[in-house]
Amino acid sequence: MPRIDGRTPAQLRPVTIERGWSKHAEGSVLISFGDTKVLCTASVTEGVPHWRKGSGKGWVTAEYSMLPRSTNTRSDREAVRGKIGGRTHEISRLIGRSLRAVIDYKALGENTIVLDCDVLQADGGTRTAAVTGAYVALTDAVAWAQDKKIVKSGCDPLTDTVAAISVGIVDGTPLLDLCYEEDVRAETDMNVVCTGDGRFVEVQGTAEGAPFDRKELDDVLGLATVGCVDLAALQTDALAVRQEPA
Amino acid sequence: MPRIDGRTPAQLRPVTIERGWSKHAEGSVLISFGDTKVLCTASVTEGVPHWRKGSGKGWVTAEYSMLPRSTNTRSDREAVRGKIGGRTHEISRLIGRSLRAVIDYKALGENTIVLDCDVLQADGGTRTAAVTGAYVALTDAVAWAQDKKIVKSGCDPLTDTVAAISVGIVDGTPLLDLCYEEDVRAETDMNVVCTGDGRFVEVQGTAEGAPFDRKELDDVLGLATVGCVDLAALQTDALAVRQEPA
Amino acid sequence: MPRIDGRTPAQLRPVTIERGWSKHAEGSVLISFGDTKVLCTASVTEGVPHWRKGSGKGWVTAEYSMLPRSTNTRSDREAVRGKIGGRTHEISRLIGRSLRAVIDYKALGENTIVLDCDVLQADGGTRTAAVTGAYVALTDAVAWAQDKKIVKSGCDPLTDTVAAISVGIVDGTPLLDLCYEEDVRAETDMNVVCTGDGRFVEVQGTAEGAPFDRKELDDVLGLATVGCVDLAALQTDALAVRQEPA
Amino acid sequence: MPRIDGRTPAQLRPVTIERGWSKHAEGSVLISFGDTKVLCTASVTEGVPHWRKGSGKGWVTAEYSMLPRSTNTRSDREAVRGKIGGRTHEISRLIGRSLRAVIDYKALGENTIVLDCDVLQADGGTRTAAVTGAYVALTDAVAWAQDKKIVKSGCDPLTDTVAAISVGIVDGTPLLDLCYEEDVRAETDMNVVCTGDGRFVEVQGTAEGAPFDRKELDDVLGLATVGCVDLAALQTDALAVRQEPA
Amino acid sequence: MPRIDGRTPAQLRPVTIERGWSKHAEGSVLISFGDTKVLCTASVTEGVPHWRKGSGKGWVTAEYSMLPRSTNTRSDREAVRGKIGGRTHEISRLIGRSLRAVIDYKALGENTIVLDCDVLQADGGTRTAAVTGAYVALTDAVAWAQDKKIVKSGCDPLTDTVAAISVGIVDGTPLLDLCYEEDVRAETDMNVVCTGDGRFVEVQGTAEGAPFDRKELDDVLGLATVGCVDLAALQTDALAVRQEPA
Amino acid sequence: MPRIDGRTPAQLRPVTIERGWSKHAEGSVLISFGDTKVLCTASVTEGVPHWRKGSGKGWVTAEYSMLPRSTNTRSDREAVRGKIGGRTHEISRLIGRSLRAVIDYKALGENTIVLDCDVLQADGGTRTAAVTGAYVALTDAVAWAQDKKIVKSGCDPLTDTVAAISVGIVDGTPLLDLCYEEDVRAETDMNVVCTGDGRFVEVQGTAEGAPFDRKELDDVLGLATVGCVDLAALQTDALAVRQEPA
Repeated sequence: MPRIDGRTPAQLRPVTIERGWSKHAEGSVLISFGDTKVLCTASVTEGVPHWRKGSGKGWVTAEYSMLPRSTNTRSDREAVRGKIGGRTHEISRLIGRSLRAVIDYKALGENTIVLDCDVLQADGGTRTAAVTGAYVALTDAVAWAQDKKIVKSGCDPLTDTVAAISVGIVDGTPLLDLCYEEDVRAETDMNVVCTGDGRFVEVQGTAEGAPFDRKELDDVLGLATVGCVDLAALQTDALAVRQEPA
Repeated sequence: MPRIDGRTPAQLRPVTIERGWSKHAEGSVLISFGDTKVLCTASVTEGVPHWRKGSGKGWVTAEYSMLPRSTNTRSDREAVRGKIGGRTHEISRLIGRSLRAVIDYKALGENTIVLDCDVLQADGGTRTAAVTGAYVALTDAVAWAQDKKIVKSGCDPLTDTVAAISVGIVDGTPLLDLCYEEDVRAETDMNVVCTGDGRFVEVQGTAEGAPFDRKELDDVLGLATVGCVDLAALQTDALAVRQEPA
Repeated sequence: MPRIDGRTPAQLRPVTIERGWSKHAEGSVLISFGDTKVLCTASVTEGVPHWRKGSGKGWVTAEYSMLPRSTNTRSDREAVRGKIGGRTHEISRLIGRSLRAVIDYKALGENTIVLDCDVLQADGGTRTAAVTGAYVALTDAVAWAQDKKIVKSGCDPLTDTVAAISVGIVDGTPLLDLCYEEDVRAETDMNVVCTGDGRFVEVQGTAEGAPFDRKELDDVLGLATVGCVDLAALQTDALAVRQEPA
Repeated sequence: MPRIDGRTPAQLRPVTIERGWSKHAEGSVLISFGDTKVLCTASVTEGVPHWRKGSGKGWVTAEYSMLPRSTNTRSDREAVRGKIGGRTHEISRLIGRSLRAVIDYKALGENTIVLDCDVLQADGGTRTAAVTGAYVALTDAVAWAQDKKIVKSGCDPLTDTVAAISVGIVDGTPLLDLCYEEDVRAETDMNVVCTGDGRFVEVQGTAEGAPFDRKELDDVLGLATVGCVDLAALQTDALAVRQEPA
Repeated sequence: MPRIDGRTPAQLRPVTIERGWSKHAEGSVLISFGDTKVLCTASVTEGVPHWRKGSGKGWVTAEYSMLPRSTNTRSDREAVRGKIGGRTHEISRLIGRSLRAVIDYKALGENTIVLDCDVLQADGGTRTAAVTGAYVALTDAVAWAQDKKIVKSGCDPLTDTVAAISVGIVDGTPLLDLCYEEDVRAETDMNVVCTGDGRFVEVQGTAEGAPFDRKELDDVLGLATVGCVDLAALQTDALAVRQEPA
Repeated sequence: MPRIDGRTPAQLRPVTIERGWSKHAEGSVLISFGDTKVLCTASVTEGVPHWRKGSGKGWVTAEYSMLPRSTNTRSDREAVRGKIGGRTHEISRLIGRSLRAVIDYKALGENTIVLDCDVLQADGGTRTAAVTGAYVALTDAVAWAQDKKIVKSGCDPLTDTVAAISVGIVDGTPLLDLCYEEDVRAETDMNVVCTGDGRFVEVQGTAEGAPFDRKELDDVLGLATVGCVDLAALQTDALAVRQEPA
C-alpha cells in the first residue's frame, strides 16, 4: 500500500537545509522535512550559567516553540497563557540533550550556546527536524566562535554529527519520517536520535494504540537507524559549502 | 548627507510581500522592509468573544512577537519569563486598532480573525511592517471566508487599505522608514498608520532626545503620509495577483 | 454646542495640585483634573539598576495603576489576575518617557526616582493628570535629594517642566481635556505631552471612528499646545509655595 | 511613661470617617486612624459566585492592598511581581470574615458586595482601620441597593456593627491602637474584631518577643473590647448623617 | 453528649510521633493526630537569606502544603494553578512564627532551617499537627547540626518546646482537638500555640457562626492550655529516645 | 562486580505495595522500590473534561510531584516558584499515557480518574514506581466505581496490567532497577513501561555519556521486559487480597 505522498516506507520526505538564514545569529538554519519548516538559530555568549562557573566547561541548551498558526488550528501563545506547556518542555529538553551528546564541554570552554528552534510550519516530525537543523546551526556557531577566538581552534568541540527521525507503525507497516496525517493514524510512534556512526542518543517510543512487541520495536529501530544515516549525509553535504562567518 | 544604505530621505527600503506563505493559515504573508522580516498569519474562527455575542458584529485582533534571536542580541522568550512585556503589549494593541480601523464589523458578521505577526528578523520598523503585512493577510482571510460562505459576499468587510511606516529625525534630517541603525540615532521617532486615502489612523511620536517643535512634527508627518501612500500601492499590487484560496 | 460640563472647547477642567500629600514619600502630589484624581508619589533610592551601574547617570521610571473601583464598574486587580494588562504597561511607559525627557541624568547622579501614579478616581484623562502631577512630585523629590546631599546642588537635574493633556474631536468639534463621557464619544482621541516651552515630548493620536485628516490633526495639536502651556503655569504656581522638605 | 504621641494607654488615635469619598462606588469611605489612611469602597453586583447560585443567599468579600509608597520604604507592587503576598492574602481574608460575621445572607439575596480596602498611607493598624471603614462603606452600599430595589427593604442584611482594633504590650504596658513605632517595639501584638455588643469575631494575637501569659492576654483583650466599643460609637455617629444615595 | 469518636471534651485524639521517617532530611517526623497525618522534614543549610547576612543570626522558616487528595474531595495542586492560595500562605506563616518563638537566633549561628509540613491525610487540625511535629523535626535537625559542628554545642538554639492545638465550641460545648466533622459544625474555632511552660505564642480565634463572648473565649483558652501541656509531654517522650544522627 | 546493595544485575529492589493507605481516596497505594516511596492516590469524578463531553468515553490522567525534601538536597516547591518544571511535566505525561494504554474508555463511561503520584522519598526510579503503584490504585478506584454503580460492571475498563522499570548500563554492565547512586553513574538510562503480557507501552532511553549501540539497547530491553513481568506478578499478588471498598 503506497504512502499518502507516494513515498516508500523507508524514504525520507524531501529535506532542505538553508544555512545563514538570519543575519544576526551566529548560526542559523531553515530546515524543512517536507512541509515541516523549522528555523533554528544558535546564539553564542561568553560565560556559563552560575552552577557551572569555574569548571572550564561550556554549556549547550535549546528552546523549542511553535508559532501559533504553524498548525492547522491556531493554538494560544504560551507567552499569553503565561506558562510553557508540558509538550514544549519535553521537546526543548530532548533537543538540548541530543546536542550535548556530541559536545566536548572542555573544548567548548566556558561559553554557552543556545539553540532556538521555532516551528514556522508543522506537518509532523517537528522535533526531529529541529534536532537535525539545530546541529547544523550549532556547527556554524562553533566555527564562528573559533573564528572570533572565543573558542580555541585546536580541539573540535563537536565530537560527531547528530540527527533525529520519527518512525511509526501505520496499519501494521513500519514507516520512516511520518507526516502529520500518518502520525495521527500511527499505532506506535517513535523518535530516535542517532550520532553519525549510527549509535543511539535517544530512543522514545510510545504505543498510541495497542502495545507493541519486540519484533515491531526492532523493525522501527532498524528503519530509524537508516534514516539517521541518510540525514547525517545531508547534514555533511550542507556543511561542505564554505560559508563566510557572519 | 547620504543615508547608511544610500537611500534618499523619503525613500522606502525594498519591500517584498509574499502571500500564501503558510499552508495552514487562511491568510499568510511574509513581508520584508529591507532586512526586517515579519510572518503575518490570519486565522478565521466562527463566533466572537463572549462580550460581543449576539451583536451581529465580528472582531479582529492581533498578537505581535519577536523570535528570541530576531535581534542582534538574543532576548529571553516571554513564554519562559511567564509574562508579556510592555512593548509587546503595546505593539499588539497598535496592530489590532490599525486593522479594526478598516473593518466593517457588521459585514464581517459574528466571526473573529486573529492576526499573528511574528518577527523572524528585525532591523527597525517591525511594527510598521507587521501592520502593512497583516492587512494583506487579513484581506486574503476575508476572501477565504467569503469563498467558504462564512462571511457574506455582498458587502465587503474591508472599507479601505491600511499601512504603517516609521519616520524620524536623524542629525536634523527627517527620514522615512528608519533601519535599526538610524532608529538608534534618531532624536525623534514616529510611527504613523494611514488608510489608503492618506488619512491617519494612528500617530505615535516620541522625542528620544530633545523635544521636537511643530515644524519638525509637520515635516515627519508629511514624509509619513507619502510613505503610506507608496505602501498602499504595493499592497494593492500584491493583492492584484489572483490566488487560489487554500 | 456647549460641552457637558459647560466648558468652552479650549478650556481645562478645574485643576488642583496638592503637594506633600503623603508623610512618607520624598515627593507626593494629589492632582485632580475635574473628577479625575491621581495620587503621585516619588521615591528616591541611591543607586541605579544594574545595567546602568558605573555610568555616573541616574534613572527615572514610573508605574501607573487604577484602584479597582476608581471607575464606574469595578475591575479585577492586576495583582489578583497575576499580570499587568497592556493598557497599564503602555501608560506606565508613557509616564516614564515623559519625565525622562526633562531629566539631566548626569546631574541626577547614580540615583533612581520611581514615580507611582495611582488613580483614586477616574473620569477621563488619568494618564495626562498622572504625567502632570508626577512632574511636581518629581521636582519635590529632587529638592529633597539635594537637601539631603544625595544629589549635588550645583546643577539642576530638571531641564524643563513637562505636562500632558488629552484632546479629541467630538461631534466634529476639537475639544481640550476630555472627561469620560466626551472620551467615549470622541471620533479621535489624542494625548500630547509638552515641555514648558511648548515643544512636543509625545504625540499619541488614535482614530476611534473614522480616520482623521491633516486639518483635524493640526487643530487638536494646536489645542493641546495651549492646554500644556496652561498646565505648566499651574505647575509653576503650585511649586512656588515653599514647602518644608519632609 | 507617656506614649510617643502623648496618648494614654487606652486611648484611640484621632479617627476620621469620610463617607461618599468616591463618585463611582456604591459605598466609599476614607478612614483614618491617626496617620493611617485607608480608602474603602463597596461595589455591589447582582448575582453571586457560581458555587452559591440558586441558594437565595448573598456574598460579601474583601481585598486589601497597600499602595507601593504608603510605607516609609517603597515596596514592589504585587501586580508587578505577579503574585499576592502572604500578608495581603491574610488580611484580605480577615476583612472578609469580619464583615460576613454581621451579614444576614438571606436578607442580602443573591447579590455580591466586594469591599476594596486600599491603604493610601500606613502608620500601623491598617487592617483594623480597613475593617472599621469597610463596615461603614458596606452599610452605605446596602442602603444604596435597597434604594435601587436590588435588595429587599423589609429585613436588614446587617445584623450588627463590626469594628477592629490593635492592642499590644510595649515595654510591659498594654496599649490600645498601636502606631507603627509602637508596633515595631511591641512584645505582643493582637488584632481584635468585635461586634457592636462587644462580642468577639476574631482574636489574633502573636508573641513578637517572649511568649505572653494569661494575665497579659486578659489585659489586652480588655483594652481591645473598650476600643471596639468606642469605634462602634464613631461608626454610628458617622452613619447618622443622612447621605444622598449616589 | 459524647463526641463523635467517644472522646471527652478535653481529650486529645491519639497522637503518634514517628521520628527519622525520611532518610534524607536532617530531621523528619510523621505525626498523626487521629486520622490527620503530616510529614514534617527539617532541612539545614549553612548561610542565611541575604537580608540577614553578617548578623551572626540564623533563620527558621516553614512551608505547609496539602497533597491534592489528602482531603475528602481532590483539590487542584497549587503548582498547577501557578499560585499559592491564601490559606496555605497563612498556615505556612503561622508555623514559621511558632517555631521562631523558641529559637535563639544567635545560638543557631548563620544557618537556615526550613521546615516542610506536607499533609498526607487531613481530618481537622492539620496546622496544629504541623507545628507540633515540626518542633520535633527541628530539634533533631539542630542536634544533627551540632553533631556536624555546623552549630556550636555550648548553647542550645532551642529555648523551649512549642506545640499547637485547636479548640472550638460545638453545640455550645467547648471541645479540644476538633476532628473535621466537629470543625465543620463549630460555632467558634481557635488555634492556640503554646510553649512548654503554658504561655501563648499565637492565639487565633474566629467566630464561624455567632460572635463569641468573653466567657466562651476563656473556656476554650483554658482547654487549649491543657492540650498544649499534654502535647509538650508527648514531644518530650518522643525525643527521649536516643536516635542515631543520619 | 557486585552492585552497591548486593543485588544481581537482573534483580529488583524489595518492592512493597500497601493498598488502602488513605482513608479519603477511592484507590490509594504507598509503593516502595527499595528506599523510593511514592504515594499514589486515585480520585474518581463523574463527568469528563469539556472536550470529551458526549463521547460516552472516560478519561484517565496523572500528576507527579516530589516533596521538597524527598531528595538529598531540598528543592524549591513548584507551587512557590509558580510553575511546573519540565521534568515534572514530562513524568506526569508519561504516567498518564502508561495508564491510558490499559484503559477501555468506553467501558469506563464518562468518568474521570486522576492519579496523584507524590514522591515521599526518592532513591532512583520514582517514575517507574509511580506507574507501577498508580496501576494498583487505579484498579481499586475502578472497583470502587463499579461497586457504587458509577461504572458499569459487565465490562472491565482495565484491559491489562501495566508496570514500569528502569534499566541502565553502569560500568559496561546492564543493570535492572537502578538506585540513585547507580543512576548517577549510568552511561545509558532507560525507562520501560510494559503491559502484563510483556509488550511495550513506552520505551525512553537516553545516552547520558557515550551513545549506545544496538547490542546495548537489546540487552537493556531484555532486562526491562523481565523486570516488568516480575512487577506484574507483584501487582497481581497485591490485588489478590480482598479489600473492603472505602
